[in-house]
Formats: sequence, structure tokens, C-alpha cells
Amino acid sequence: IINQDNKQLKVLLNEFHYADIAEILDEINFEEAIYIIKLLDSETTSDILTELDEDVREKILKNLSAKEIAEEVEELDTDDAADIIAELPEARQEAVISQIEDEEHKAEIQELLAYDEDTAGGLMAKELVKVYGTWTVAGCIRRIRGQAKDVTRVHSIYVVNKEEKLIGRLSLKDLITAKSEEKIADIAKDNVDYVNVKDDAEDVARVMAKYDLEAIPVVDDELTLLGRITIDDIVDVLKEEADKDYQLAAGITQDVDSDDSIIELTRARLPWLFLGLIGGIGAFIIMEGFQESFNQYAVLFFFTPLIAAMAGNVGVQSSAIIVQGLANDDVKGSVNSRLIKEMLLAALNGVILAIFLFVFVWAYNGEMDKALAISVSLVAVIIIAGLIGTFVPLFLNKRGIDPAIATGPFITTSNDILGILLYFWIAKLILGI
Amino acid sequence: IINQDNKQLKVLLNEFHYADIAEILDEINFEEAIYIIKLLDSETTSDILTELDEDVREKILKNLSAKEIAEEVEELDTDDAADIIAELPEARQEAVISQIEDEEHKAEIQELLAYDEDTAGGLMAKELVKVYGTWTVAGCIRRIRGQAKDVTRVHSIYVVNKEEKLIGRLSLKDLITAKSEEKIADIAKDNVDYVNVKDDAEDVARVMAKYDLEAIPVVDDELTLLGRITIDDIVDVLKEEADKDYQLAAGITQDVDSDDSIIELTRARLPWLFLGLIGGIGAFIIMEGFQESFNQYAVLFFFTPLIAAMAGNVGVQSSAIIVQGLANDDVKGSVNSRLIKEMLLAALNGVILAIFLFVFVWAYNGEMDKALAISVSLVAVIIIAGLIGTFVPLFLNKRGIDPAIATGPFITTSNDILGILLYFWIAKLILGI
Repeated sequence: IINQDNKQLKVLLNEFHYADIAEILDEINFEEAIYIIKLLDSETTSDILTELDEDVREKILKNLSAKEIAEEVEELDTDDAADIIAELPEARQEAVISQIEDEEHKAEIQELLAYDEDTAGGLMAKELVKVYGTWTVAGCIRRIRGQAKDVTRVHSIYVVNKEEKLIGRLSLKDLITAKSEEKIADIAKDNVDYVNVKDDAEDVARVMAKYDLEAIPVVDDELTLLGRITIDDIVDVLKEEADKDYQLAAGITQDVDSDDSIIELTRARLPWLFLGLIGGIGAFIIMEGFQESFNQYAVLFFFTPLIAAMAGNVGVQSSAIIVQGLANDDVKGSVNSRLIKEMLLAALNGVILAIFLFVFVWAYNGEMDKALAISVSLVAVIIIAGLIGTFVPLFLNKRGIDPAIATGPFITTSNDILGILLYFWIAKLILGI
Repeated sequence: IINQDNKQLKVLLNEFHYADIAEILDEINFEEAIYIIKLLDSETTSDILTELDEDVREKILKNLSAKEIAEEVEELDTDDAADIIAELPEARQEAVISQIEDEEHKAEIQELLAYDEDTAGGLMAKELVKVYGTWTVAGCIRRIRGQAKDVTRVHSIYVVNKEEKLIGRLSLKDLITAKSEEKIADIAKDNVDYVNVKDDAEDVARVMAKYDLEAIPVVDDELTLLGRITIDDIVDVLKEEADKDYQLAAGITQDVDSDDSIIELTRARLPWLFLGLIGGIGAFIIMEGFQESFNQYAVLFFFTPLIAAMAGNVGVQSSAIIVQGLANDDVKGSVNSRLIKEMLLAALNGVILAIFLFVFVWAYNGEMDKALAISVSLVAVIIIAGLIGTFVPLFLNKRGIDPAIATGPFITTSNDILGILLYFWIAKLILGI
């Protein structure tokens, strides 16, 4: 594609949206990507940088000088600028910051870098439109023309008092439809939602999604207006959270995607497989322990994969429902009532499945006592698996640990072992061995 | 709580945000909820209705007359109104629509009801601010004052030509910062993103998330402006999609949450458990078939839960990565190169795990040939499981079937059976039976 025909290429690329160019750069080889980045002007490339895959961005930034990065960063909103600088090695961060020419932009980026990236402070941008309650509508419109130049999207205008404390908000629509001599304080809405700068990013996402907000102001403990978070950042938080939970449920730690290297993918997947291996060895030891007692009943051993699979599936189902309920904040009622409900649910499912299994085993080899032993154990195993699947995420959540790690291989493995153990115990009891 | 002290209750509830009241109503008993709905004015209750759980809303609407529902619906934006009416039984839909007094609102709702709810048409609202390219900025601001009253949030102003075809867009900010005698056509941006009314809702969500759009206009095949979709609706689509994929991976069909009834939860969970049961029976039949050949090697049977677990885990991991990659639209390259990569990855993981297992079995019972047979089969099983986990979702996706159903119990069960079969075959070969 690249025949070094700069002009034509530039014209071609200018037709594309920066998100599309980022997608192209993610795919082509690295020298070509650098070449294109250097070709385009910093207004476009800065937007492209924010949209690139993290590992591609890292490589490209390594090939730019601190001065070049500073130029890119000057074009960006403070939140995106801070995110990009935060990804650099510490020594380069300082070099880049010192090269930023606009002193105000520099100070704002430095402020944002001080916040933890998983808090409201880490998500917010300093760009916002702020007016004082004492201004008139006409004066306000005049001044907004100045402020709004730096703000990509206005959303809300925040009203503050003399001490810079948030006292209300106003939409551009309110401003346009108001009479020009009115005081801002009189037309502003004073029940304004806000979040604290130290609030957890996922909580902010939940609040904005619940109240359908498109932007929310961020304040400190004294209600001083510090910045604002817009919904496009929240969409990213929600997507990341959902992706992480999904990967944990499938037994994949770390944020990987299908295009990562084999080594990265192995690092994310192998630990969980190892857990499964340990579980399988546990199952082997249990079965070997029961070998003597059951040498008349070899058929029982053939049902261990069935028992393990059912215990695993039920456990994953119950834990997934709880994890999702916790994420959406709609797990209500006491732990006990929840466990009782899950027990009834598991018992109902278990009995239906056990009846089917009983009929099959009886019809298949004609021995009712074995069929009974297997089916009764199945019900017990399903109930216990359901209880564990419900209890473990609730417990982890109470302890402040992400309950999503309880789904997937963790629950499957522990339920496998426990299920097989329980199965042989109950079978032993029923068969009177 | 309810001592029939209407006035005090009303004052109390007016302090809350409608989303919070909806949350309260979801939890209290049904008579109380109806009582509160009838107490509050329709401006508040209509917003509450949109935030309620679907089943609670259904019950409440059953207790309201067609006239009362029509009053609620008049207060809502067309998209929310159409969504609520669409949930009613068909006979009631007509009764409610005929009671809507505002003829324009009625016609717009009827138009929206005609679209499939999973398309752009099903998401869009008719409320938008539309201006003609021939207007001047001053004239435009004057007319917008009228139009904007009906539009909760303005976002963008859409510019159309005489034939109502979309030709550009404009932000309120552009309007405020422009000189009042300029022509709209001259200050409008003409590279406006739009979606077709028949586009899939999930595709619209992806486009809006990718380009960080807060609203997007919806047009028909002739580019006629029909409506617009705002990002808050997209947040819901993304959340629903993520929840659905997560539940499918855990073996839960249908949209249920932890507070649904035991019957509903059973309907969502039992079919997948049944699939697992069939898989377990399959494993039993396979093991019985190999009983004769392996009566010298009882120890091999004790490793079947391990083999099944590893086959299941690897399959779920690979399918989850593919499903997520497909959802985020970043699965690139050919199917073959993807299968080769997964094979290398599975081989690497498999060999590491197999070495560990080999050492354990050899140390544990001193028989190298059995240890070798078990470990070599493990590697083969992991590779095959990885390939199936990669291939099945890619195949389903090509066939236009949601690949998410391939994760969870479906992959686990098929990999369990295949894994055990393969395991005995290979063990037989190696031990020379």
C-alpha cells in the first residue's frame, strides 16, 4: 500500500475517521504505522493514539521523542492526555510533561495524574463550562463563547458560587430558551447529581447508567468543582468491567484479546488450567481411596464424570447469577433466604434430573439399588453445588474481593472434588457397604 | 410505612429521583406499589414506569385502565412510550393508542411500534431538533426555542434539505458561537454519521461506542431523517448484550435475574443441566465400552474426571476469547491461522501440564508406562479441546448464529465426551492393548 506517495496517502487518510485509521494501524506492520503517524498532523494523530490498542500505542510512543509526544498530548483533552502519559515509563513521563508548552494544560494533566485510575478522579477531564450564579444570561452566553472553545462537548454548564463550590447546573437549552436579563442563579437547577473525586470508577458508571446521565460533575469533600466525567468514558468502563467478568468466568485472568501473543495468552490461561489439574488429581485420589469398597460396583466409577460435570455446571450457574446480581446491585434480602431459595431451586432441578437418570440406569443394567444410589447422590451433589455456588461469591463480596473470580474454574474445580467425594459417601450408605 | 398519610408520603417521595422510587417499588408489595403510582402525578410516574423491572411493570399496567396508561405515555418520549406499549397484550395496545390525545405523538408512536425492537428503528426516538439548511443562525435559534421544548436533551441539531434528507449536523455550541446572520448550510458539518433504520441494534451500539458518539441520526434508504438514537439507550443495549453473553457462558438461557421465581430460574437453567446429564451418560457408555480392555488398568478410569475437566476448561477458554473477539469486532485473519495459533497455544499449555501430571503419576504409583499414556493423552485432549473451542464459535458466527451459545455447557459437554473417548483410544495405543 505504501509506495511513499505521501501526498496521495495523506489525502486518502484524511477521508477516514480517526477511529478507522487506528484500526488500520493496529493491523499493519510497525514501520508502516510509525510512518503514517509521522505523516499526519498532530491534531489527527493525537485522536488516533487514544483509539489504538494499548500494546501498539506503547510501541509507537517508544519511537517518538518526548517533544513529539508532548505535541500530541497538547491536542488532547486533559483526561485522554493524562491516560496516555500514565502509560509511559516514569522517567519519560517527566520528560514529556516538561515539554508541554501550555502551562495551564500542563498543571491540569499533572493534577489528573495524581489520581488513581480506578477512581472518579482518574476518569474526569478538567474541560468543562463553569459559570457563576451572579452572572446574567446574556453575560453568561458571552463568556461561554470563550470557554466552550476548549470543550469538545458542552453537555451541562455547571454553576458555582464565589468559593468555586458547585451549586447547580444548566443546559445550553435552558440558556437559549431563557430571557437574556435573567440571573443564572434563578434559572439553574439546584438538584444536581455529582460524584466525589475518590469514588470508585465502577460506582460512577453505575450511577450514570441508573440515572441516564450524560455527564456528571466531580467534586472534592468540600463540594469544590474539580472536573467532569462524560458518558463516553463510562461506556468504556462498563465494557471493560463486562469483559473482565466474562473472562474470569471462562478462566482467563489478565486482560488479553485473541490477537495477543501465545506467551501472554498462556500466562492468562495456564494458572486456571493448573487449578483444574490439581482438582483432577484430587478426584483421582478420592476414587482410589474408594476402590476397595467398590470393587463389586465398577459401574459407579463410570458415573464420576457425570457427577463432576453436574456439580460444576450447577455451581457455575448459581455463582453467575449472584455475580451478575451483585454487579447490577440487585441482590436483596439476607444471605440465608438466598441460600434457602437456591437450595429449593437446586432440589427441584436435581430431582427432575435424578428421575431421568434413575430410569436410564435401571433400564440399562437392571439393578435398582445401584440406580437408586446414583440418583440420590446426584440430588445431594446438585444441592451442595448450588449452595457453594451461591455462598462463595456472596462471601467474597462481603470480604471486599471481586466475586467474579469465584465463577468459572474455581467453582468448577472445588465442586468437582466435593461432588465426587459426596457421591461415593452417599452411594456407600445406600448400598450398605 | 404506608399509614395512608398521603400528603406526607407525597412530599417524601417528591424528594427522590424517579429511578430510586422505581427501585423501592420493585421491592415493596404489589398493592402498595399500585397505591403509590396512583398517588403521584403522571409526570413522575411515567418516568418511574420506564425504570421498573419488566415483570413489576407488567403487573402494574394490568391494574391501570387504558386511559390511565395513555396519560402516562403522553408524558414520555416517543421511544420509551413505544417500548411500554409494545409490552402490552395486542388488544390493549390498540385501546391505549386510541386514548392518546396528542395526534402527532400518537402517529409517531404508531410508526415506532412498526419497527423490530432489535433494530435502529426500535431504539430511536422521534424527538429531535431539525433545521433547514437555508435558514440563518438567528432564525434558527428562534425556531429551536420552540422545537427544543419537547426534546429532553438536544445533543445535535440535524440539518436537512427541502426533501427532508439529512445533509449535515450542528451542535448547540456551534450555533451559540456563530454570527447571527450566517446561513446554517455554511456552518453545518457535512460529514455526519448516521445509521439506517433497519440496522441491527448491536451494530448501532458498536458504531456509537467506537466513534464516541452521543447521538446518531436514523435515516431510511433515501437518507430521509426519521429519528435519532441517544447514548443512554446504547448503554442499555451494551449492558443487555454483555449480560446475555455472560449468562449463556454460565449455562443460563433467557433473561433472568436472581430475584426471579424458582420456576423461571428452573426454565432458564434446567435445559443446560440436562445437556450435561446426557453428556455424562455418554461418558458412562464410553467407559463401559472400554471396561474389558482396561480391566488390568483400573487406575486409568480414576483420571477420567481430570481429563473431562481439562477438556472442558480449555474449550471454554478458547471459545470465550473468540466470542469476545467477535463481539468487539477484532477477530482478524483467516480461520486457519487462528486454528494453528490455538493449536500451538494448547500444545504449549498441554505439554507443561502433562509434564507435571507425568511426574505425579510416576512418583505416586511407580508405573512409567501408565504415567506416559495418561500424560500423552492429556496433551492430545487439550489440543483437540482448544481447536473445538475455537472452531465452533467461528463456525456458528459464519452461519449467522450467536456464537455465545457455544461457550459454557455446550462446549464443556461435547469436549467431556470427546476428551474421554480420545483419552482411552490413545492410552490403548500407547499401552498396546
